[in-house]
Amino acid sequence: MSEHEESINTEEEIENMTLLVFAGDLDKVIGAFVIATGAAAMDIKVQMFFAFWGLNALRKEGYKNPRKDFISRMFGWMMPKGANKLKLSQMNMMGMGSAMMKRVMKKKNVMSLPDLIKTARDLGVEFIACKMSMDVMGLQKEELLDGVKLAGVATALAHASESRTSFFIS
Amino acid sequence: MSEHEESINTEEEIENMTLLVFAGDLDKVIGAFVIATGAAAMDIKVQMFFAFWGLNALRKEGYKNPRKDFISRMFGWMMPKGANKLKLSQMNMMGMGSAMMKRVMKKKNVMSLPDLIKTARDLGVEFIACKMSMDVMGLQKEELLDGVKLAGVATALAHASESRTSFFIS
Amino acid sequence: MSEHEESINTEEEIENMTLLVFAGDLDKVIGAFVIATGAAAMDIKVQMFFAFWGLNALRKEGYKNPRKDFISRMFGWMMPKGANKLKLSQMNMMGMGSAMMKRVMKKKNVMSLPDLIKTARDLGVEFIACKMSMDVMGLQKEELLDGVKLAGVATALAHASESRTSFFIS
Repeated sequence: MSEHEESINTEEEIENMTLLVFAGDLDKVIGAFVIATGAAAMDIKVQMFFAFWGLNALRKEGYKNPRKDFISRMFGWMMPKGANKLKLSQMNMMGMGSAMMKRVMKKKNVMSLPDLIKTARDLGVEFIACKMSMDVMGLQKEELLDGVKLAGVATALAHASESRTSFFIS
Repeated sequence: MSEHEESINTEEEIENMTLLVFAGDLDKVIGAFVIATGAAAMDIKVQMFFAFWGLNALRKEGYKNPRKDFISRMFGWMMPKGANKLKLSQMNMMGMGSAMMKRVMKKKNVMSLPDLIKTARDLGVEFIACKMSMDVMGLQKEELLDGVKLAGVATALAHASESRTSFFIS
Repeated sequence: MSEHEESINTEEEIENMTLLVFAGDLDKVIGAFVIATGAAAMDIKVQMFFAFWGLNALRKEGYKNPRKDFISRMFGWMMPKGANKLKLSQMNMMGMGSAMMKRVMKKKNVMSLPDLIKTARDLGVEFIACKMSMDVMGLQKEELLDGVKLAGVATALAHASESRTSFFIS
């Protein structure tokens, strides 16, 4: 291996980041996207792997799918439908806390979660939905934002093994 | 140092993973074990370090220990006794959510948590219980699954410093 | 680059750790500080970046600031004021669980959170408060422990990219 190749490999390793987004709380998902967009703006290649509750952040707001079994429909109905519906992990107070948080963020010129998601995509952040989680929670590809890829945990682990920094956001 | 030695070291670094399992919720512990077994199947050497609530996943179901002080007995009685008793971090609904989740996982042919734990062990994943947490929560070695080693946080940090990927699962 | 310089760089990479402290629960913050002090004792350079609920661990107990808008005052009043006021993420039971935990830690000679914070500082652990989170939660620099620096997420990401181990504690 030449010295040049070696330095390219090192470079690649430094520039990657893997975020395993397991939580679906408004505050934690905002945290994940602040990190993702911040890293992408620093030219780091970011992959976000959404599993379990984290998938709720990727759900389309209006989508309805009648061809589901009973338990899947239950899950689908009980879980928040998309970025606008997520709740704070604490002090949610029947939605009052989440509304307050959104108002404050707007007032302080902090991007809203839907804007952070859009910015992440524009900056080339890759979104992967965990296939196994989707199966367990009865979510279908059509219910998620367009362009989200489906993959297994091995995809996230392979990316993590090429990343300098990896976080599990639970 | 010869070039050969250098490449061996790099290899070793790549192949390790450290998981600090701090949470004891059914969903999060399943997440931890899906990662651990997935990584082990990719020939990555995985160490799981269980601290605090995470220790509950390692408790033997039937074990009773009468020689404990009052607070330890309280803790022991209030915390879930083993992998089968863990609850979802959300939508637990007095156990109904956890039962639903287990049923769906079975139906979708996803391994149950006890099976994931067994598979992890078969794949050589190392289980370490945090000594300090055990002390604080009044848990004794005999209450944990056989073969679990006890160690301090320095052990986990040393393993993490030799790991390409490390996650804190809280 | 000489071989000597190369080995120094590698060394530096190994010795850094970045902790993103997002949670403000007593148990999780104790976990973060046990890791931080453990790593610092192993001569690892640790940076703790406190965001969102994690900021509550850095609040001064007695501080009052009347010059705040209504929502900031609400947040300030509802969130725990400093390390002594944090609550367990589970089994808090109106504060009884947290009190029990503190009592047990004292009995078992585990350092209290305020002592862990002091030890971390004495060992040279760097404390950074997330500027954006402070803005959103209406916290001001004077409300935080002396010597805490303010910075954006880019600071934490830059440190993480030079760290062997980075954890997101949520």
